[in-house]
This record gives sequence, structure tokens and C-alpha cells, in this order.
Amino acid sequence: MDWTLFFIFLLACAGAATTGAMFQPGKWYDELRKPGFTPPNWVFPVTWTVLYICIAVAGARAAPLDTTGHAMAIFAVQIAFNTLWTPVFFGLHNTKAGLVVIGILWLSVAGTLWQFWQLDWIAGLLFVPYLVWVTIAFALNFEVWRLNRARPIAT
Amino acid sequence: MDWTLFFIFLLACAGAATTGAMFQPGKWYDELRKPGFTPPNWVFPVTWTVLYICIAVAGARAAPLDTTGHAMAIFAVQIAFNTLWTPVFFGLHNTKAGLVVIGILWLSVAGTLWQFWQLDWIAGLLFVPYLVWVTIAFALNFEVWRLNRARPIAT
Repeated sequence: MDWTLFFIFLLACAGAATTGAMFQPGKWYDELRKPGFTPPNWVFPVTWTVLYICIAVAGARAAPLDTTGHAMAIFAVQIAFNTLWTPVFFGLHNTKAGLVVIGILWLSVAGTLWQFWQLDWIAGLLFVPYLVWVTIAFALNFEVWRLNRARPIAT
Repeated sequence: MDWTLFFIFLLACAGAATTGAMFQPGKWYDELRKPGFTPPNWVFPVTWTVLYICIAVAGARAAPLDTTGHAMAIFAVQIAFNTLWTPVFFGLHNTKAGLVVIGILWLSVAGTLWQFWQLDWIAGLLFVPYLVWVTIAFALNFEVWRLNRARPIAT
């Protein structure tokens, strides 16, 4: 693996991760009605740390290969929408817009997985836990929106 | 130019642009002490619209070429930090953290420009206005931090 590529991709992931560090759940999130499958708060940073490492390894494996144009374009989409989701959800408390953002994120993660799989199956495999987690996060975002839409937005 | 690639990169830029639409300047920004070279508010969305189109065209030109690994990795860094800056600055009103974010953004834009230039000089050239604008934005962020650091953070 090209370690320079790994650390550049890890820096991109660090940009996305910074939103998680700076826009914390807090009182608003604690007081929301949440579905039964909601993981405890500590699970989120632990999971994302593992996922960001997987993303950086996958990127470092796939990027140096030939004909990576579409793969790396969709990769750019997923990292942008990954960075966007936290400020929209935890910053603006906008669960509806968050649902749109995480929907596009899900599609871009699935697209990157598909593209990576054809370039290097290990890179594709490294995106599987990411897709599983974004599926859970999408369901959680949907349920939070559904269960709380009748209530005024607490700020 | 590969139009599919153009629209995928434009979607990544749309992710970054959404922060600008959702985290507006508002009262806090209006009341800050700002340097003399601060552009009027309407300049920002106009400039970013042009820049995002340039970024998407540059990406669509460079991505299908050979040996684009490092270029596309640094491209991912710039789009993540571009998406990150607005929520940190306009969302959290954290001008100091904003300065760190825009510093890394500047380096990643310069790095992408350098990499793109070697792959396709037009793609590199399309990043020049972006680098110029981020230089101005960095100076503006720095001056806003410097001129207002003695004041309590208004929320």
C-alpha cells in the first residue's frame, strides 16, 4: 500500500471527522424520541474511527490503479456529504434535510463500493462496513425525523 | 470532456455549496469588525458558483487520465475541508478553528493545482481562481479573528 496516499486520504477523513468532534449531540439529541435500535452515544466515535481508517485504506489501494476516474469522482461525493451530514443534523437540528443528505451519502457510498470492487475487491470489501453503518444511520435519521416531526424544533 | 464525470464532481461541489446555503452570515457576521478589503455579501455566492463549476470541469478533465492517484487523493482533501469551513466559521462562529481549516484547505487546493497542472495544464489553470479566492478568504478569516479576538463570542 502507498502510505503517502493512505495519509492523504486519512486527512480527508479527518476533515469529515472534525464535524463529529465540533458538532456534539448534546441536550437536543438526548431529549429526542429515538427508535429502539439507537446505539449508545459512545458507539458513534468508535465506529467512525474504524470506518475512516477503512475508507483511507480503500482509497490508497484503489487510487493508484488505472481507469479510476468514476471511482474517485464518486469517492469525492461521499467524503463531501459525509462532512455535510453532521453540521446539518447536529448543528442545525434539521432532521429532514439530514435525511436528504444521508440519502445522497448512502448512494455515493454504494457507488464507490461498486466502483472499488471492480478495481480491487479488497478496496470494495473495506467499504462494506461503511455502507452497513450508513444504512443504520439512515434508518436512525428517518426514525428521529418521523418520531419528532410533530414537535417544535428545540434549539 | 466526460459529462458524467462533470456531473458527479458537480454533485460533490453541491455538497460543499449546501453549507453556504444553510449556514448564512447573519447578524453575528454583520456585527464583526472586518478589514477594508472585505467583499460585499453578494460576492460570495456568485464567486463560489463560478469556482464550483471550474472545480467540476477540472476534475472531469483530470480524473480519467493515467496516474491520478495523488491528484485525486488531494482533491478529496480539498472538497472535505471546503465543506467543513462554513459550518465551523458561520455555524459555530469559531474564527480560530476556521483559520486552521482554511489553512489546510489552502494547502490542499495548492496541492491539487500542482498535481492537476502536471496531468493537464487546463485542469491546473481552472484551479488558479480557486487558489486566489481561498487566499483572500484566508486573509479575511485571519483579519476577522485578529480584529475580534478581544471581544466575547456573540452567538
